[in-house]
Amino acid sequence: MHGAKRGVFISFEGVEGSGKTTQAQALADWLQKSRIPYIFVRDPGTTKIGEKIREILLDKEYREMHAKCEVLLFLAARSQVTYEKILPALREKKVVVTDRFSDSTFAYQCYGRQLPRRLISIFNRFAAAGIKPDLTFLVDIDATRRMERGKFNDRMETEAEGYHQNVRQGYRALAARSKKRFKILDGEKTVDVIHDEVIHLVKELLKRKGCKI
Amino acid sequence: MHGAKRGVFISFEGVEGSGKTTQAQALADWLQKSRIPYIFVRDPGTTKIGEKIREILLDKEYREMHAKCEVLLFLAARSQVTYEKILPALREKKVVVTDRFSDSTFAYQCYGRQLPRRLISIFNRFAAAGIKPDLTFLVDIDATRRMERGKFNDRMETEAEGYHQNVRQGYRALAARSKKRFKILDGEKTVDVIHDEVIHLVKELLKRKGCKI
Repeated sequence: MHGAKRGVFISFEGVEGSGKTTQAQALADWLQKSRIPYIFVRDPGTTKIGEKIREILLDKEYREMHAKCEVLLFLAARSQVTYEKILPALREKKVVVTDRFSDSTFAYQCYGRQLPRRLISIFNRFAAAGIKPDLTFLVDIDATRRMERGKFNDRMETEAEGYHQNVRQGYRALAARSKKRFKILDGEKTVDVIHDEVIHLVKELLKRKGCKI
Repeated sequence: MHGAKRGVFISFEGVEGSGKTTQAQALADWLQKSRIPYIFVRDPGTTKIGEKIREILLDKEYREMHAKCEVLLFLAARSQVTYEKILPALREKKVVVTDRFSDSTFAYQCYGRQLPRRLISIFNRFAAAGIKPDLTFLVDIDATRRMERGKFNDRMETEAEGYHQNVRQGYRALAARSKKRFKILDGEKTVDVIHDEVIHLVKELLKRKGCKI
């Protein structure tokens, strides 16, 4: 990305089953084809340490996990992927596409599990080195509709439906608060239609950042 | 512990090789023999989730672990053992003996890795539900002497010697700040001599708390 001071940071957010991972990967494929240097990460995960933490977080065996333990594990994985992968890539002026980032913690742990927002905000800044995505896609889908989409197996996915309703409401509240950063995508549309919207908005952002496409 | 409002919380602290684990276990054995209801925990660890987190923390493979990821993992394990084991035991008026607790985080991550004290203090209160030990034994030993004591193999133990010097200084600074709570034990003395000191001080504490021994 010639001309830009640092790379561009794009996150995908949404409840399980919304299709956000499919969209994040489709954007990564498009960047690949367009020969734009990029990295694709998932949070929690990607780093060796983060993938180990992810295993603990998603293991259905650990029903007894306290909400505080859960949020601290998510933050631990985030700090590792931030320092090991995201910050170096942004310094090298790459595009960073991430499947989830700090907004997930607000949606899942503050709105979903009622942990205090002010405190989680301090923790998030610490873990994520103060960085925020330039653009966040929220793939929005009704929490009852997501059930029709497939099987849910891990510890987070199999939480009660009311929890997922709260998470969805949390995401919408976050998007309403940061209108410039968030783009809400209608998860009811087809994968291709949503992808076209994503590419349109990413192209605009890259141009604004001085990237020749 | 008849008469007490809640149980008694005792922690053991010190650098690796100081003999703190031996002393903590010896106290647990004494409580067993004295038929005083107690639990023995180690932090990080004891809970199923905490032991998994401990594996990640001590794995020598993970040299790339960022200091922030490290402290968040320690805090995650602490919150789990606090809510799953320590708080219930204290409510049942048991004695809780722990091998390490929040002071370790100040000594290792603030003094050892230079993470900011004020922030770590907020994190610690969050993870440990605001509880503090009633009595903390610091088994103090010179950082160069500890090397003679045995083999050090895990990721924390094999850190550079300067790091362990800073940790020891950190512990001494913490003890100087909380003179009533901390008891410094001279790690150069024999196991039996130190154990007798521990039992003497624990008996005093239990009497003060209304426990008949």
